[in-house]
Amino acid sequence: MEENEILDAMDYDAIQEKQYDELTQLLEQKDHKTLRERLEDMNEFDVAEFLSELEDARMLAVFRLLSKETAAEVFANLEPPEQERIITAITDQELSGLIEELYVDDAVDIMEELPANLVKRLMRSATPSTRNLINQYLRYPEDSAGSIMTAEFVDLKKYMSVKESIARIRRIGEDKETIYVCFVTNASRKLEGVVTVKDLLLHDDDMIIEELMDRNVVFATTTEDQESVSEKFSDYDLMAMPVVDMEGRLVGIVTVDDVMDVMEQEATEDIEKMAGINPSDKPYSRSSPWEIWKNRIPWLMFLMLSATFTSMILTSFETRLSAVAGLVPFIPMLMGTGGNSGAQSATAVIRSLSLGDIEPRDALRVLWKEWRVAFLCGLSLSVINFGKMLLVDGLLLGNANITLAVAATVSLAIVFVVMFAKLVGSLLPIGAEKIGLDPAVMANPLISTLTDAVSLLIYIFIAMLILGI
Amino acid sequence: MEENEILDAMDYDAIQEKQYDELTQLLEQKDHKTLRERLEDMNEFDVAEFLSELEDARMLAVFRLLSKETAAEVFANLEPPEQERIITAITDQELSGLIEELYVDDAVDIMEELPANLVKRLMRSATPSTRNLINQYLRYPEDSAGSIMTAEFVDLKKYMSVKESIARIRRIGEDKETIYVCFVTNASRKLEGVVTVKDLLLHDDDMIIEELMDRNVVFATTTEDQESVSEKFSDYDLMAMPVVDMEGRLVGIVTVDDVMDVMEQEATEDIEKMAGINPSDKPYSRSSPWEIWKNRIPWLMFLMLSATFTSMILTSFETRLSAVAGLVPFIPMLMGTGGNSGAQSATAVIRSLSLGDIEPRDALRVLWKEWRVAFLCGLSLSVINFGKMLLVDGLLLGNANITLAVAATVSLAIVFVVMFAKLVGSLLPIGAEKIGLDPAVMANPLISTLTDAVSLLIYIFIAMLILGI
Repeated sequence: MEENEILDAMDYDAIQEKQYDELTQLLEQKDHKTLRERLEDMNEFDVAEFLSELEDARMLAVFRLLSKETAAEVFANLEPPEQERIITAITDQELSGLIEELYVDDAVDIMEELPANLVKRLMRSATPSTRNLINQYLRYPEDSAGSIMTAEFVDLKKYMSVKESIARIRRIGEDKETIYVCFVTNASRKLEGVVTVKDLLLHDDDMIIEELMDRNVVFATTTEDQESVSEKFSDYDLMAMPVVDMEGRLVGIVTVDDVMDVMEQEATEDIEKMAGINPSDKPYSRSSPWEIWKNRIPWLMFLMLSATFTSMILTSFETRLSAVAGLVPFIPMLMGTGGNSGAQSATAVIRSLSLGDIEPRDALRVLWKEWRVAFLCGLSLSVINFGKMLLVDGLLLGNANITLAVAATVSLAIVFVVMFAKLVGSLLPIGAEKIGLDPAVMANPLISTLTDAVSLLIYIFIAMLILGI
Repeated sequence: MEENEILDAMDYDAIQEKQYDELTQLLEQKDHKTLRERLEDMNEFDVAEFLSELEDARMLAVFRLLSKETAAEVFANLEPPEQERIITAITDQELSGLIEELYVDDAVDIMEELPANLVKRLMRSATPSTRNLINQYLRYPEDSAGSIMTAEFVDLKKYMSVKESIARIRRIGEDKETIYVCFVTNASRKLEGVVTVKDLLLHDDDMIIEELMDRNVVFATTTEDQESVSEKFSDYDLMAMPVVDMEGRLVGIVTVDDVMDVMEQEATEDIEKMAGINPSDKPYSRSSPWEIWKNRIPWLMFLMLSATFTSMILTSFETRLSAVAGLVPFIPMLMGTGGNSGAQSATAVIRSLSLGDIEPRDALRVLWKEWRVAFLCGLSLSVINFGKMLLVDGLLLGNANITLAVAATVSLAIVFVVMFAKLVGSLLPIGAEKIGLDPAVMANPLISTLTDAVSLLIYIFIAMLILGI
């Protein structure tokens, strides 16, 4: 890209589009030399995007133009289907070069998504030491700090001077995932402190690391959940976090770019659970209908069967409810309002729990707050509904069944339904968290099935009191 | 903290707790010298946590122990209520020192949360140039790149050598939010390229920046939405992104720690919208019941009133439905199953849209996938329901109303209800995105209200066909 393009451009997307057009042209002109230069200059992510738009033969040809280092970084940025296409097509020797260039955490990520036969081929192509390292990573529990860390970090000793440290970074820094945060370890590889390149640059050359390092290191253990790692990153505004094993030895680091992926993944999981979907690591676009069905049917089935209680209640009281015309048509509205009210509370509480905004010990405070919100919501809905039933249903639509007593019954039921729904909606997630369950599953679907049954009972009870059914 | 504590500790939380206990002890012993030393050594986030547990007088006393720089960073890490407590208590001179030390983006964040009278006092305490800068930031649209950027970055010129650049970083780096990514600008402050400290360290001292800088800069414009900024960060694994004004001049940078907050905030907003809550910047724990009510009542009200259609349908068909005993009790189950099915599809589609996994142009592919999923779900639910109605409701519970024809009616209705719900659930969000609306509002509550009415019509229609009601 020419210099003035950045200067004049107002939008990165426009630049990108122009870039792709030029690349396509170079490819068609078979000007491989220029094409290669341009690709080496580009962001790896953009090269990956460009590659994935090409058909197989062309993609492979372009991929082979790249230098070893660029090829590895571009490969890590491709989506699994494109990674498969490339692995299937390249030679064993090329594959071996590729896997040695990849950062271990990227290699592990890729392996987790590939079909077993390709994983085997990849592992065969790796050198024994790389294979060992990958195997070790694959053994860490899923979603643990160990599974997302990388082994490529800069380690320093506390007796080094600033000058020696910078020299070491210059020597070994090239292949490290980050050089900006360096970790000080003792002879038995235990973590002693952390030094940033900023510290190094802003201090005298002959200062000793020990005087300069921060002993207050925020660290994770290999088996720690990735969600807790990502919370620490955002609390402490970290760029990299050391990961230690059970003996306190430094075994890897987690970098901020991996944590951003974790945050996205954890939010997606919460959102899916809240909608009664079993979370999956596979993106929607790449999941088959069968896989999607498998993630969705358990909750649908469970909730459908749970609705038996509501059916039983309706069966028992159908005759009595039908005795006063005009009562049955408002059942769906009551249940819907209950479900929506409960879902709001559950969502607010689940999200606040997951952001650390509230904790299980705040249960009483949350309940008291929800109780007041529920009262306000219930009351306002009730008043509006009362007016609406008399004016719209009664007068405007001329429904003779809407008597003052029927409108009062429905409106009074709303208050209690909303209050019950909001209390259950806030209590269930916070209770789940308290006993160590994931609060996100105590969400909308479960709560609406529960409130359906209770709403009906409340409605029947109030109708008995007011209308004597 | 002593050296061996890190070595022996298995868990950062345990270290933290011990630290707080020691600090409390020092505070009680009035050993302010040691306390100050310890606090200066600690992470600002931990100091902020410690401060917020203290009562007013003690908090202020401890806050005053801190050095100017630490005080500013700790202050930025406090929650708004604690920030208010401190601003109210300190002198104008202290306040002025504090505001000058804060990064502009932090100062702006704090101002946005404070009551107007405190904002005025803060602005009065700032120097004219700081006040100008803050005012300029406050003018950027909410949630734009301009509103989250910071002005404290390192700028270099392309004719500088590596040695000169490192010298410049050493000279001006202290107060910059990041020194690791430096931006190359020309005489009119237009952005020309980017250089990382890694590039500088890994190249010879006398190399010229122009030969080394990356001209392919991923940048944002001041008015660009923060969501698009955060997508670029995670696509390109950035640490910092330059922000340019309408003339292409570099005016600030966004750093990765701010982007992590943006990601969290955007995910929260999506989650809230999906549950029919109007999003708010204020965390749940600090919102009053009135504020929560204001965010929740609009959707509750709208959905309650929309349920009028369902009531009207039920009013018209109540007599015919009641003609065959056993039909009415299954209405809530049908509506619930429809609502849950639609919510699953809507959630999956909304999240995939927001992650960029699918795009509006994939609409047909999504519909075809959902159609197959819906068929699988509908069929399996239907079969299980048929068996369950006959065995459990009919035989086990001895409900004589459950005839073969009634069970067939309900089970057949399930297939169509699920298929309708899943199609609507996937179509509405993708259609909203297509016409430029936020897909997240086309979620669970709206879809369940819509499916309620249609589920009922489907049920009635099938009952007419099979049972001739």
